[in-house]
Amino acid sequence: MAGNIFGTIFRVTTFGESHGVAIGCVVDGCPSGISFDLPFIQSELDRRKPGQSAIVTQRKESDTVQVLSGVFEGKTTGMPIALLIPNEDQRSSDYDHIAKAFRPSHADFTYQAKYGIRDYRGGGRSSARETAARVAAGAIAKMLLLTRGIHVQAYVSQVGKLCLTLPYQKLNLALAEQNDVRCPDPEMADQMIDYIKSVRKAGDTIGGVVSAVVTGCPAGLGEPVFDRLHADLGKAMLSINAAKGFEYGSGFDGVTMNGSVHNDHWEMGPEGPRTTTNYSGGIQGGISNGMDIYFRVAFKPVATIVSAQPSLDADLQPVEITGKGRHDPCVVPRAVPIVEAMTALVLADHLLRAAAGNWKAASSE
Amino acid sequence: MAGNIFGTIFRVTTFGESHGVAIGCVVDGCPSGISFDLPFIQSELDRRKPGQSAIVTQRKESDTVQVLSGVFEGKTTGMPIALLIPNEDQRSSDYDHIAKAFRPSHADFTYQAKYGIRDYRGGGRSSARETAARVAAGAIAKMLLLTRGIHVQAYVSQVGKLCLTLPYQKLNLALAEQNDVRCPDPEMADQMIDYIKSVRKAGDTIGGVVSAVVTGCPAGLGEPVFDRLHADLGKAMLSINAAKGFEYGSGFDGVTMNGSVHNDHWEMGPEGPRTTTNYSGGIQGGISNGMDIYFRVAFKPVATIVSAQPSLDADLQPVEITGKGRHDPCVVPRAVPIVEAMTALVLADHLLRAAAGNWKAASSE
Amino acid sequence: MAGNIFGTIFRVTTFGESHGVAIGCVVDGCPSGISFDLPFIQSELDRRKPGQSAIVTQRKESDTVQVLSGVFEGKTTGMPIALLIPNEDQRSSDYDHIAKAFRPSHADFTYQAKYGIRDYRGGGRSSARETAARVAAGAIAKMLLLTRGIHVQAYVSQVGKLCLTLPYQKLNLALAEQNDVRCPDPEMADQMIDYIKSVRKAGDTIGGVVSAVVTGCPAGLGEPVFDRLHADLGKAMLSINAAKGFEYGSGFDGVTMNGSVHNDHWEMGPEGPRTTTNYSGGIQGGISNGMDIYFRVAFKPVATIVSAQPSLDADLQPVEITGKGRHDPCVVPRAVPIVEAMTALVLADHLLRAAAGNWKAASSE
Amino acid sequence: MAGNIFGTIFRVTTFGESHGVAIGCVVDGCPSGISFDLPFIQSELDRRKPGQSAIVTQRKESDTVQVLSGVFEGKTTGMPIALLIPNEDQRSSDYDHIAKAFRPSHADFTYQAKYGIRDYRGGGRSSARETAARVAAGAIAKMLLLTRGIHVQAYVSQVGKLCLTLPYQKLNLALAEQNDVRCPDPEMADQMIDYIKSVRKAGDTIGGVVSAVVTGCPAGLGEPVFDRLHADLGKAMLSINAAKGFEYGSGFDGVTMNGSVHNDHWEMGPEGPRTTTNYSGGIQGGISNGMDIYFRVAFKPVATIVSAQPSLDADLQPVEITGKGRHDPCVVPRAVPIVEAMTALVLADHLLRAAAGNWKAASSE
Repeated sequence: MAGNIFGTIFRVTTFGESHGVAIGCVVDGCPSGISFDLPFIQSELDRRKPGQSAIVTQRKESDTVQVLSGVFEGKTTGMPIALLIPNEDQRSSDYDHIAKAFRPSHADFTYQAKYGIRDYRGGGRSSARETAARVAAGAIAKMLLLTRGIHVQAYVSQVGKLCLTLPYQKLNLALAEQNDVRCPDPEMADQMIDYIKSVRKAGDTIGGVVSAVVTGCPAGLGEPVFDRLHADLGKAMLSINAAKGFEYGSGFDGVTMNGSVHNDHWEMGPEGPRTTTNYSGGIQGGISNGMDIYFRVAFKPVATIVSAQPSLDADLQPVEITGKGRHDPCVVPRAVPIVEAMTALVLADHLLRAAAGNWKAASSE
Repeated sequence: MAGNIFGTIFRVTTFGESHGVAIGCVVDGCPSGISFDLPFIQSELDRRKPGQSAIVTQRKESDTVQVLSGVFEGKTTGMPIALLIPNEDQRSSDYDHIAKAFRPSHADFTYQAKYGIRDYRGGGRSSARETAARVAAGAIAKMLLLTRGIHVQAYVSQVGKLCLTLPYQKLNLALAEQNDVRCPDPEMADQMIDYIKSVRKAGDTIGGVVSAVVTGCPAGLGEPVFDRLHADLGKAMLSINAAKGFEYGSGFDGVTMNGSVHNDHWEMGPEGPRTTTNYSGGIQGGISNGMDIYFRVAFKPVATIVSAQPSLDADLQPVEITGKGRHDPCVVPRAVPIVEAMTALVLADHLLRAAAGNWKAASSE
Repeated sequence: MAGNIFGTIFRVTTFGESHGVAIGCVVDGCPSGISFDLPFIQSELDRRKPGQSAIVTQRKESDTVQVLSGVFEGKTTGMPIALLIPNEDQRSSDYDHIAKAFRPSHADFTYQAKYGIRDYRGGGRSSARETAARVAAGAIAKMLLLTRGIHVQAYVSQVGKLCLTLPYQKLNLALAEQNDVRCPDPEMADQMIDYIKSVRKAGDTIGGVVSAVVTGCPAGLGEPVFDRLHADLGKAMLSINAAKGFEYGSGFDGVTMNGSVHNDHWEMGPEGPRTTTNYSGGIQGGISNGMDIYFRVAFKPVATIVSAQPSLDADLQPVEITGKGRHDPCVVPRAVPIVEAMTALVLADHLLRAAAGNWKAASSE
Repeated sequence: MAGNIFGTIFRVTTFGESHGVAIGCVVDGCPSGISFDLPFIQSELDRRKPGQSAIVTQRKESDTVQVLSGVFEGKTTGMPIALLIPNEDQRSSDYDHIAKAFRPSHADFTYQAKYGIRDYRGGGRSSARETAARVAAGAIAKMLLLTRGIHVQAYVSQVGKLCLTLPYQKLNLALAEQNDVRCPDPEMADQMIDYIKSVRKAGDTIGGVVSAVVTGCPAGLGEPVFDRLHADLGKAMLSINAAKGFEYGSGFDGVTMNGSVHNDHWEMGPEGPRTTTNYSGGIQGGISNGMDIYFRVAFKPVATIVSAQPSLDADLQPVEITGKGRHDPCVVPRAVPIVEAMTALVLADHLLRAAAGNWKAASSE
């Protein structure tokens, strides 16, 4: 069973390769009657698209999205929504050198081993270009969430060793989109940008962390025992290219805490029950508890570097490979909208799953 | 859509509550013809069962497993395998105080909010007792994996701030099962055990980390773009009670590395292609590459503590709650077989998924 | 991917073999808060159980159902509901003669070909005994449907060539359960019973038809384009042992009609829109339209007969097989509750699917 | 959960409306390495396309298919295969009269009731135009099946009361594609064509039956207890627009037979075990037995007729509706390739499911 369909009720199928005709997605299970905001989808794609700043890949793609189905007179109809993003700026010849060789820490070897054939041009299906389709689908999920007042925001919290120390509550997240690296602390953003430029100049790459916060999520989303909300969020994040780790709430730091400190105490707030602290990250027993949901995603350094590296070719003979093609020196600035999109897909799916399991909703339908 | 079924081809359904009649599971999709080793399943359950040592909960459950179906003359038949584990030592009266109150950082509030009703006795379905059913199912998955030479081992690598610094390759993992805390370094194990005892004595709890290693996994498991092998492993781990984070390969540490350092170079080894380093953690592009797979899972401190804590009752009035019932001061020693079981379930599922997608296998069937 | 899980949101897994320890099911996805009526489940099982009359198999099974999980203080909790039915009256020695031979028109050959191993005792998993688990799960689905006023009734409309000519509207369906063959026309019922007895006496078997009617189903159930309500009903019915055909509404007879006759015209009735005729069988475009749903299921004659028949053994050598064991001369009387159960499972699933897709329900949740 | 995804391992998503930009499909799970025959896909679409003869709708669509992804250097890559078919000849104004009224026996009322909105132009998503996407996907499934020697052929066996009396074995199925109605008996074909013309002339429509035969299917496909091969075939057929019934093997006629007659006896043939008769229709216990699989699908008369019919409008007021737009007088000629396509999709899926469940295949992978 191939793995190109995501979600259970709000289901997204993506398709397309980096240097093929087009990439795109089909969203099946979006409820009818939602106002369809095509400019919003395009604006989300613009946040992810290549060539948008000096610190990302310079491939030129307008990433112009077309709607093929599922929308009528400005509203969703409950039918599958197909979105198409034509590829424009392929330079496939940049990739001739890897047609028969395996780049280090790329998917070249594993795709060849698994499928016996691969579209090597630009990494084919394993290219992060595929995530544009996720961002488009995620924008539809965001439309659904916004009608419920659920808001998703991600930002860059770390590049290499440059790490924000303040928690999200003490940051002005609105500032994140005002700089090229998408860090809400302007001073840190400048440092990160300079650092990424220096790494690129050295022909190298660097990793980073994207943090995300969900506000306005009602209590009750998540389906134990296996489909806990944070488990599905974790899978979604780890399915993004270059992701290496996921933690929510107290995360790995929670390991060193005592229960007496870590426990979040319930109290009544002006808007209802709330916890005095939120080490739980808004999720208890796998179900949202009404508090903010927050988590972090680790991204490794991009594998394509300019210097020569030893590897093997298709005949398993030694070969030396030097990175070509246009690539990002650090993925996290462009990963921000992708993290948001995958978060929105998970929440939209769980919102509808909760509706399905909600007996009163079923009763009054 | 409720979330009590795990996997796509090797599918496991678990059922049962902490203080109900029994817990159990049904495995649908296990291939026929596998030698069925019931004592092995029991031995795996014994590794997880309560009361096995001084540093775990003292609830007395023999966790004796019964096979109801799917096995004939010592072999699996390809039919659903139902396993039953009767509950024996319920002390439901220990939980009367939470029938109408929400314990801090437990699932009491969220289950009530989501379902409008909950079996509060022993935490009901949200109890980690449910994981016994996973261990039983995981033992069947291990039987499948062992026929292919795939081996899964987990161990405790951190309790509070006590952290193993050596990587798994420099440890003698065979030692892990020789002490109560399941740490392969005997000296560190002693320290951890002493530390857990002191925490318990103080009426408190502490978190920890379980590390896992998979050896013998062939290249080719994992289904991009969404069902990447590490994404499914991450979801599986995060679905375990008290899990807060997951990282594989270089994980969060990889964030601070340059691509020139982080890249794993291919070379020919005596048994075929291998990488000189393994920051990829055995998975590239979401597909296993034949190298060892390794990852870490963070667990928070147990929420049940002996001291009084403020909370709310079912009428949202303030209340004070003091932990009762028998519980673990630290989950990681008993989490080790659970991590292994969930790992085995993911790998067995992906092994069969790969078989389904394997055209040559399909051709010669 | 094995096929022992049915449904998408209201999901049922069945397990167990005819001569194993027990059969049973797990229902995952039943909403919380539904009054749980165990005697009703038992009464449904009693309608299906063997030995209930002179015209069915004389195997003696009390089919006493036990609830293992998912129910608390008389209500469903939203957790998986596991039901267990121990086997009591196995006579496995009756089946020694087929351990290494393939009965004609049974599943012996195909199970052996597919799995390489089979529990031959009583037909193992292929025995219609498995359907007891479906009836138990279906009873839970009926509880759900009854809260919405949806009612399912099936009855025997044909045995051999003895066929009811009146449509269901002109029959008193309440009479169906008052005779052994479950035909609502008492005179026809007597003829059918006599005929089945004569067939049994001759050592032979005969086929029949079960008809079903669903009343009270609201408009809006069914998920085109693939999961049309009648397509899922058809699959459900065809998944019952011995089923050979399914038709709904005008069915095969509709083939010979003109569109001008077959079209159902909309008009306003006292309770809202209705159609003047109902050749559509209550389903248009795959979605229920609020009218009665009705359909027919064809069942072949039971394959076990007393006379000697030629066949092959496991070494593909000719062999002669004479039916042993206790069996039904005609399946339809006992198929009635099974048809109802599978119908209820489909409708419960689609009711919850509709709730998931219902944007207003999602909004006000 | 919406229903636009079909299959479990070989999974097809279709999208698009009758008068939208395009229709299309994404096939996820097609194995890699299969020679991709685009002209074959086009030729299958040509068999279904409108305007191909005098007895079908005169809408002019070239149904030219484009491949967007999943194919590289003439072979499938294991990645999702997206196919696009632009709409060309919409006359949406033909449908203004049903924007606010419900055509009898169409999906207008039910879509409005379920979704609260509908693209009424040409029936929108409920139009049989959607089946072009199925035919395209089915052509890929056929490519897969042909490598195993599995062949699917459908033909028209009945139009109104004109019914072929010979079984498929006595017909020359190769003749079916040589006439406009796709009936393999040339004389009967002429009668059917004349009859359809006369029905059209009268402004009316008529139903029919499509029969199908699968040859070369190995034993072992089908997944009891729920996903029996014939149950999945039945669902697939019933998911086709206008389908009202499905029967396989002896079907409804088998109801009147005795077991002693109906049982298929095993014997050794020149190529291995075979049954002397085949009332089982090539499937026993839900699993293929190596014999030919055959079944019949009933189609109702097309609902669009030229004469005026009473109905209701969106305000539930009486209205009179007269059919406009271009439509088929009888669906069965164009249903033939659709039946084949859905059959191929089911078989391809089950072929891969069998591979997944096949322990030996898994072992030697």
